[in-house]
Amino acid sequence: MAKQVKTAVTPTRSEDYSEWYQQVVKASDMAEHSPVRGCMVIKPWGYSLWENIVKELDDLFKATGVKNAYFPLFIPLSFLEKEAEHVEGFAKECAVVTHHRLEKNEQGGLSPAGKLTEPLVVRPTSETIIGDSFAKWVSSYRDLPLLINQWANVVRWEMRTRIFLRTSEFLWQEGHTVHATDKEAVERTKLMLDVYAQLAEEYLAMPVIKGRKTKSERFPGAEDTLCIEAMMQDCKALQAGTSHFLGQNFAKASGIKFQNAQESEEFAWTTSWGASTRLIGGIIMIHGDDDGIILPPRVASSHIVLLPISPKEKDRTLVMEFTENLAKELRNTWYHNSRLRVEIDYRDTGGARGWDWIKKGIPVRVEIGPRDIADNSVFVGRRDKEHRDKKSYKRDEFISAIKDILDEIQQNLYNRAVSFRQAHMKSIDDKNAFYEYFTPENRETPEIHGGFAISHWCGSEECEAKIKEDLQVTIRCIPLDRIKENGKCICCGQSSQERVIYSKSY
Amino acid sequence: MAKQVKTAVTPTRSEDYSEWYQQVVKASDMAEHSPVRGCMVIKPWGYSLWENIVKELDDLFKATGVKNAYFPLFIPLSFLEKEAEHVEGFAKECAVVTHHRLEKNEQGGLSPAGKLTEPLVVRPTSETIIGDSFAKWVSSYRDLPLLINQWANVVRWEMRTRIFLRTSEFLWQEGHTVHATDKEAVERTKLMLDVYAQLAEEYLAMPVIKGRKTKSERFPGAEDTLCIEAMMQDCKALQAGTSHFLGQNFAKASGIKFQNAQESEEFAWTTSWGASTRLIGGIIMIHGDDDGIILPPRVASSHIVLLPISPKEKDRTLVMEFTENLAKELRNTWYHNSRLRVEIDYRDTGGARGWDWIKKGIPVRVEIGPRDIADNSVFVGRRDKEHRDKKSYKRDEFISAIKDILDEIQQNLYNRAVSFRQAHMKSIDDKNAFYEYFTPENRETPEIHGGFAISHWCGSEECEAKIKEDLQVTIRCIPLDRIKENGKCICCGQSSQERVIYSKSY
Repeated sequence: MAKQVKTAVTPTRSEDYSEWYQQVVKASDMAEHSPVRGCMVIKPWGYSLWENIVKELDDLFKATGVKNAYFPLFIPLSFLEKEAEHVEGFAKECAVVTHHRLEKNEQGGLSPAGKLTEPLVVRPTSETIIGDSFAKWVSSYRDLPLLINQWANVVRWEMRTRIFLRTSEFLWQEGHTVHATDKEAVERTKLMLDVYAQLAEEYLAMPVIKGRKTKSERFPGAEDTLCIEAMMQDCKALQAGTSHFLGQNFAKASGIKFQNAQESEEFAWTTSWGASTRLIGGIIMIHGDDDGIILPPRVASSHIVLLPISPKEKDRTLVMEFTENLAKELRNTWYHNSRLRVEIDYRDTGGARGWDWIKKGIPVRVEIGPRDIADNSVFVGRRDKEHRDKKSYKRDEFISAIKDILDEIQQNLYNRAVSFRQAHMKSIDDKNAFYEYFTPENRETPEIHGGFAISHWCGSEECEAKIKEDLQVTIRCIPLDRIKENGKCICCGQSSQERVIYSKSY
Repeated sequence: MAKQVKTAVTPTRSEDYSEWYQQVVKASDMAEHSPVRGCMVIKPWGYSLWENIVKELDDLFKATGVKNAYFPLFIPLSFLEKEAEHVEGFAKECAVVTHHRLEKNEQGGLSPAGKLTEPLVVRPTSETIIGDSFAKWVSSYRDLPLLINQWANVVRWEMRTRIFLRTSEFLWQEGHTVHATDKEAVERTKLMLDVYAQLAEEYLAMPVIKGRKTKSERFPGAEDTLCIEAMMQDCKALQAGTSHFLGQNFAKASGIKFQNAQESEEFAWTTSWGASTRLIGGIIMIHGDDDGIILPPRVASSHIVLLPISPKEKDRTLVMEFTENLAKELRNTWYHNSRLRVEIDYRDTGGARGWDWIKKGIPVRVEIGPRDIADNSVFVGRRDKEHRDKKSYKRDEFISAIKDILDEIQQNLYNRAVSFRQAHMKSIDDKNAFYEYFTPENRETPEIHGGFAISHWCGSEECEAKIKEDLQVTIRCIPLDRIKENGKCICCGQSSQERVIYSKSY
């Protein structure tokens, strides 16, 4: 135990952030690698977090008029080819179905048989297959706007995978909307970005910067890609959601046309927007500490674990009854849009039991022993505080306070993340200082990956590419709230009117 | 309109049930065929019904201790081959991924490239891939029971497809549990069947018969398959959910072993159980009438549509305000586990508007015109009654009554389905009468497919096969609540101890 008290996870973040990530995922029992290359198994503790994210995000979508639907997993190759940039962007990482049955081979094993006349691609994203339906659904301006979302699995055959952050198969939602005007589609693109920002900040306690991708980082086939970017604790950026204005590109590719009020035919304007199980990786990396993950209460897999303690047989019934009653009362208590999620851990494994829940990141741990019960009290530990920093509450006082405790934890996580980002984000105008910032080995106090540099960019793809080649640093986004400011490009020194966010990223 | 008043859908059920089904699906705007062979697009009105079924079923599962997780879409071919009967059962209908990228070909198009060393099968069901995880998760009897469910898409390359009933891709849940004893696994198999029966009867208003499949109709690799069977309005049976006792077959195939309390190692006992979007087809076929589908309120896509009527411009604001206020109050009203789902249809399309909602099967339609408002009333139509049979309610009286109205509709649908089944189910002991029953063209008053014949079966596969060949009639199940009774097999005349349910089926 002594070792665990120091830090429950080895290595620590500062020792090896990347390995720390793998270890906290393992220690939390959220997910594991599968035998299928690059695919993950999401275990109950991780899946429950995803369910809560889905529920909240789905409610936010529906409040803007979006409805859910479901489209085929498979995309005929000819559909994918309809938009040239799009297919170019995804061709290198497509799982392709070529046969529709298995047949005994000469070795007595099975081989693919029943060759398809046209190969089918497992959807990497669904613009082209959904576009085919939309072309049938839309005929008049009265059918617009069309606001559809799909919760689904998608496959992108990634070469280097990392659990939650980059996997060959992942779960996501993809929204697809159709509009009569350019302006309305642009507004919807922005609105959905705001929804993602709201999810990230209010529910995931993850501060984000809203911005626009440069042309080279756009979604394949999009006219404009907006994104939210968050800073992880190794100072790298994580793109946590994207919203694309697709112009008329996909409408032309799929034939989405409508008759306008003047009775002439036009191509429609479309958008698409998505967020995925990658958000779970973000939650782990932005909030976790050297004892494991820390779940933001608004979406936590579970809010509270009750830990009955009854070393003596004679106390057992008393402790169990008190615990069950408390659980029942808590489970009937509303916390925001859902009831409190409460676990009871009956295992008799001493201190290791409490540490298991710390590693799992549950916001609140409640110890219940005979002495607490004699005093009608419970002993409460919070995941945003030191594990020894526990507080005794009278039972009813705890029930009255729990919602505030959870909200306080949520707020603390958010504030910490904001402070961290504040400390690792700076305006840099000198090229040497910029290179130094992203080359930690040159410094005496190396921060792992520099941070976010807010620097001028002239707008040329050459400068963007040069910085990427030299430092593996990219323009994460051109912030939406930037102000016009004259300056000099951090790379070429030519004049520039705006600052962008440079950083290493996932 | 005159034609529509007669019947909103053509043909009627009695004219051509199969075509009626296609037409009501179309008229309800629930789903459509996709360009991908055998795959469907589930449109918002259909998907919302699925969302409600998912929510209720998920709650029922969780109440029995089940937790959700997610496993890979792809199954390595070698995994599928581990259980001989299992792979045999699915080999003929597998979508096989053989390549992981696309490459320009000589014609300038794209061709599959990057051949995989081992083909991947798109899951038709996940016993083998989930078994691989379970083998890692289970090591001691203390880890058991393990109760896991997955909500997912699966693919079975069906040759003849029908929207919702049999599609190449469908949405479903598959539960997978692991137990220390034979007895416990058998009990879980039965428990989950009870959950499906509860979903069907209480939520879908679909009476079902619980039974056991004969050996020839079992899930490939199972020791025992339990099922619920419902009667559709053409008298065919629909299998609406299955629960399988897998014995130690899959535990042996995947290596799911545990150390028992006596510290010796044993193979575990597993179960699996599933229900799918096929249930939607069942809802349509069991409740629909010649005006379209009828949604059972407990899972209806939406409960109530408000239809504001304001032919004169001067009344418009008044009508809109009254409508919006009513919607707001209704949406804040709880109906069982969720709030009332309320639509407002602002379209100005006269009678066609009301018919659209009848065809969509919404339980309650509320007309709101200036005269109703003057009287502080609303004019209410119910989908379980004639479309002209509407009733005026005082506004507040309607709000107080709505929950009872919905419960009444739910009950009426259930009762109707029970009566229908009662009228088309009979014990038959004479072979000629049996053949006659399933050969309608021989009769003066042909019922489309006979019905359920409750007849004796000696237990031989030969008799089962003969009846199937002669009449396309199968043993749907051996009812769980059957009583021992001496009789003679309807096919061979040999002695038999029990009656089974014979019927045509989907």
